[in-house]
Amino acid sequence: MAATVVSDSILRNDADGPVPVNGGLGTDSYYNHSFFQKIAANVAKDMIDEAITKKLDVKSLLSSSSTIRLADLGCAVGPNTFDAMQNIIDIIKQKYQSQFPTSPIPEFQVFFNDQPTNDFNTLFKSLPPKREYFAAGVPGSFYGRLFPDSSLHVVYSSYSLHWLSKVPKGLEDKNSPAWNKGKIHYASAPEEVLRAYATQWANDLNDFLNARAQEIMPGGIIVVITHSIPDGMEYAELANGMMYNCMASILLDIAKRGLISEEQVDAFNLPTYAPPPAEFVSVAENNECFNIVTMGESNPSPWLTDDVHVDMNEFVSHIRAAMEGMFFKHFAREIVNEMFEQLEVKLSEISVEMESAYKDKIQAYYVLQRNYSG
Amino acid sequence: MAATVVSDSILRNDADGPVPVNGGLGTDSYYNHSFFQKIAANVAKDMIDEAITKKLDVKSLLSSSSTIRLADLGCAVGPNTFDAMQNIIDIIKQKYQSQFPTSPIPEFQVFFNDQPTNDFNTLFKSLPPKREYFAAGVPGSFYGRLFPDSSLHVVYSSYSLHWLSKVPKGLEDKNSPAWNKGKIHYASAPEEVLRAYATQWANDLNDFLNARAQEIMPGGIIVVITHSIPDGMEYAELANGMMYNCMASILLDIAKRGLISEEQVDAFNLPTYAPPPAEFVSVAENNECFNIVTMGESNPSPWLTDDVHVDMNEFVSHIRAAMEGMFFKHFAREIVNEMFEQLEVKLSEISVEMESAYKDKIQAYYVLQRNYSG
Repeated sequence: MAATVVSDSILRNDADGPVPVNGGLGTDSYYNHSFFQKIAANVAKDMIDEAITKKLDVKSLLSSSSTIRLADLGCAVGPNTFDAMQNIIDIIKQKYQSQFPTSPIPEFQVFFNDQPTNDFNTLFKSLPPKREYFAAGVPGSFYGRLFPDSSLHVVYSSYSLHWLSKVPKGLEDKNSPAWNKGKIHYASAPEEVLRAYATQWANDLNDFLNARAQEIMPGGIIVVITHSIPDGMEYAELANGMMYNCMASILLDIAKRGLISEEQVDAFNLPTYAPPPAEFVSVAENNECFNIVTMGESNPSPWLTDDVHVDMNEFVSHIRAAMEGMFFKHFAREIVNEMFEQLEVKLSEISVEMESAYKDKIQAYYVLQRNYSG
Repeated sequence: MAATVVSDSILRNDADGPVPVNGGLGTDSYYNHSFFQKIAANVAKDMIDEAITKKLDVKSLLSSSSTIRLADLGCAVGPNTFDAMQNIIDIIKQKYQSQFPTSPIPEFQVFFNDQPTNDFNTLFKSLPPKREYFAAGVPGSFYGRLFPDSSLHVVYSSYSLHWLSKVPKGLEDKNSPAWNKGKIHYASAPEEVLRAYATQWANDLNDFLNARAQEIMPGGIIVVITHSIPDGMEYAELANGMMYNCMASILLDIAKRGLISEEQVDAFNLPTYAPPPAEFVSVAENNECFNIVTMGESNPSPWLTDDVHVDMNEFVSHIRAAMEGMFFKHFAREIVNEMFEQLEVKLSEISVEMESAYKDKIQAYYVLQRNYSG
């Protein structure tokens, strides 16, 4: 088994930004390959549930509306988003019933957000038929405004905020100190490349929080579950870092055979960044509209033991479902197919290191609360 | 040129209910074949604009929220829905600015609704990039609840409410007096068939109004533009009636050749009903939550003159974009293709009668207002 630690969603529609997960319900679909994202999200569930229960003042949230409004930012195509939203509704209902046992339960409206190229058709067709909420889809980047002022009560975003709004500046510029020659990510790259990624991510998170500060009612909650990296650790030490380095070296080998140019590899960079908790806290604390209620790091693959190993074929299938769209935008289909085929072979050769690296705390959760003032 | 008077949308996902317009942006798409729906909607525009301006009390609508919420029920895939929503926003903005010249303009949120099988992906990708509203898609039947209590200010529904939620009772039952043998619609059918259609339509409109009564704030507005028929007129006299009769006779001819069975034709009925204004008024007045502010009938093809004629090839293309999905659900692809090919020939033979019938008032609009009490 494997924790893929790939995104539940990819969010901007920029020319050089990420592209969404595979749509539909077929064998290559994200819908059928998001089991590990589900497990990853569940690891932190108890802590998050407790924070919501403790902090959400249902009475004050309902002071100006009879409806509780939730949003999943970066929902992809399901089914994980349905479980996550229902879970939050259950928590709110329980709290409400214990506080106001004789009052009727409020109505819920859930907004499913992802970029406009996400497969909303699949999402809408797979909505739970007996859901206890009014459902709506919201297309657009969550790094900008998506909702009216003070209209949301709980915002949830799982495995989405590590996707940058665009490829950081300078990576594809030969004259920049951040030129990322022969790499597709900042793993094992020069310090300037790492800094370009970190800066872009911090700017994006800041944009995210500024937009949410306007949209979330005072007392409202943001839950973030994200790919992470322990403070002070290098990305090349993580399983995904090893994988990105493998991908780059396979692409360079293909370039040596003349099937693509080295420039094509240089011009391809994955817009994803795993923030160390200290960096997340720094950006969040700079934003005066939110307080960090609780946070934590975890290992998303607690089941990996000496007896349970990664199935590399399955692992690469999951990676493909989430990421192949980004490769197809830059490389011909046969190049991408070969890259993923070779990836399975290369990763199998380093499976011991990969499994060991998956025991790191590469997932973090943060629960923020919108201040009542400001 | 031709007014197709086919639906802007088809709304229920029942086994025997209608299926949506063609999605995507290709040559067969509804997106590229909805020009006539646009013209049809524009005919009544001035009257509707005036009613909204006169009746909408923007101040009272904003008493509990800083956001004006609009919904287009049966929006299909665009682009007409974008024009219609922007037009209503412009009216509200003008009224607001004249009433409160120094106040900031409120925010707008627009909900685009259609059945879950509608092509929301195309709708979302074609949203105006510089829109002045927050957009959301809402999948589901508008004959049931779609939105929280008192959350909407203006509801718009154009060329959608003539689609029934399901095929009326008895049409496909040999032992029923409403058995619709050899027909695919109530045009030229026995009185019992017409009555079954009328009853289903009245029940559906009643469900629609009951759901909206809960969702629309007191003082809020519903705009309905719908296929209609002058009181007392028979559907077989209308151009669409002639067309449905042609379709049935082509299908029966194909059955005679043994390619389909006569039972297959008997079991196929188009779930669409054109309400005479008196019937619409009767249902609306029965609902105590709404008042009819204004209404009117019009001829959606005022440009049809002695010099301007219907291009039957173009006409049939428009009909196909809106309706072929329904036929494909019941008949093999080659049967449907042949039916539409023959349709063009048959309609060309009666083009004089068709054009003359298109000068009837087969479009109606209704503006209803949600009462402040009840």
